[in-house]
Amino acid sequence: MSHLPTTPRTQAFRRKTRVSGEIEAIHAVVDQSLVAHLGFVQDGAPFVMPTNAWRVGDGLYFHFAINGRIAEALRQGGEVCATLSILDGLVMARSAMHHSVNYRSVMVFGRAQEIVDDREKHDALMVLVDKVHPGRAAQVRPPDDKELAATAVFRLPIAEATVKSRQGPPQDRADDLGLPVWGGVIPVRQVLGQPEPDQHVPAGLELT
Amino acid sequence: MSHLPTTPRTQAFRRKTRVSGEIEAIHAVVDQSLVAHLGFVQDGAPFVMPTNAWRVGDGLYFHFAINGRIAEALRQGGEVCATLSILDGLVMARSAMHHSVNYRSVMVFGRAQEIVDDREKHDALMVLVDKVHPGRAAQVRPPDDKELAATAVFRLPIAEATVKSRQGPPQDRADDLGLPVWGGVIPVRQVLGQPEPDQHVPAGLELT
Repeated sequence: MSHLPTTPRTQAFRRKTRVSGEIEAIHAVVDQSLVAHLGFVQDGAPFVMPTNAWRVGDGLYFHFAINGRIAEALRQGGEVCATLSILDGLVMARSAMHHSVNYRSVMVFGRAQEIVDDREKHDALMVLVDKVHPGRAAQVRPPDDKELAATAVFRLPIAEATVKSRQGPPQDRADDLGLPVWGGVIPVRQVLGQPEPDQHVPAGLELT
Repeated sequence: MSHLPTTPRTQAFRRKTRVSGEIEAIHAVVDQSLVAHLGFVQDGAPFVMPTNAWRVGDGLYFHFAINGRIAEALRQGGEVCATLSILDGLVMARSAMHHSVNYRSVMVFGRAQEIVDDREKHDALMVLVDKVHPGRAAQVRPPDDKELAATAVFRLPIAEATVKSRQGPPQDRADDLGLPVWGGVIPVRQVLGQPEPDQHVPAGLELT
């Protein structure tokens, strides 16, 4: 296992038992999350935007409208914080206060760089398509020059980052264990439903 | 339907067809989301923390360790942005660029106020317990004075807020519709699994 160095920011919020800079664990959370919550500062105030995020190597990638306000904000070059979180379970304790949740979350700190090379941009976007649905990048019409020019792609290095996690049963106070209250975990997961074709799909064409 | 007034911040990122300040829609997203991503600024840099969030009336509530770094940061009184998002579907277009996601998300801007009255704090925390599992607040041991004293509760008014949403099928370019590529939506939802009792649950006691 490889670890990222600890910085004042990645140390700031840690409960030591739950936090690490273990790179494989960080990448696993990123790869399993389709959405990041991207924080940046404008006029001294924070904005947190939910946005698709994906990984290429040791970079976390985002895309936005080329002249949109988010792209403009990122081009200012200020610090950002991208957080990706997965809810794994509801932890039901015998007392109100020991209720908790099982989760994994990653915070990535740094400055996002815009990808300006068209080939690199194209390739990064196709990685996102395959993240959404593996194998799909080879099926769809790739972006043309005009579409590429309309899209801003940014890369945030996964260099100052931390993964935090809670797993396992409730940690009840010993004198609560005799209460006639159910204790344990209700698992939570995100699932895909039955694909719903639009009106243009010809008969016999299935999603593959 | 009632609407919140538009401010420079809630107007800042809107695509007009997708965004509104409609209060009932904002509350609905908040009530369906157990996790908010809370952004605040420290030393000029953003932090985005995933945290449980719940609603009481027109307030969005959070709880943290009383002397933890997040509570300390919120007590500084700076602007925060709390974002709650629900992923509803993967939108599969015939072209890479028209892929999208269906979602609902809420951003709430403002300054969080700490709840210092013990009764109000207690009652707010019990609302969270019932949000996690309806009816549970009446079953569990309520917080005692020491537990209450260890917990900081904050309220962010849902007064400057916006809800953004995309729903529906892909919006393909007309000349892509003839491509032999499946198009439509793959629904996404969060589901609860089979409850997993811990080792202390007596035989015959079920989660209710």
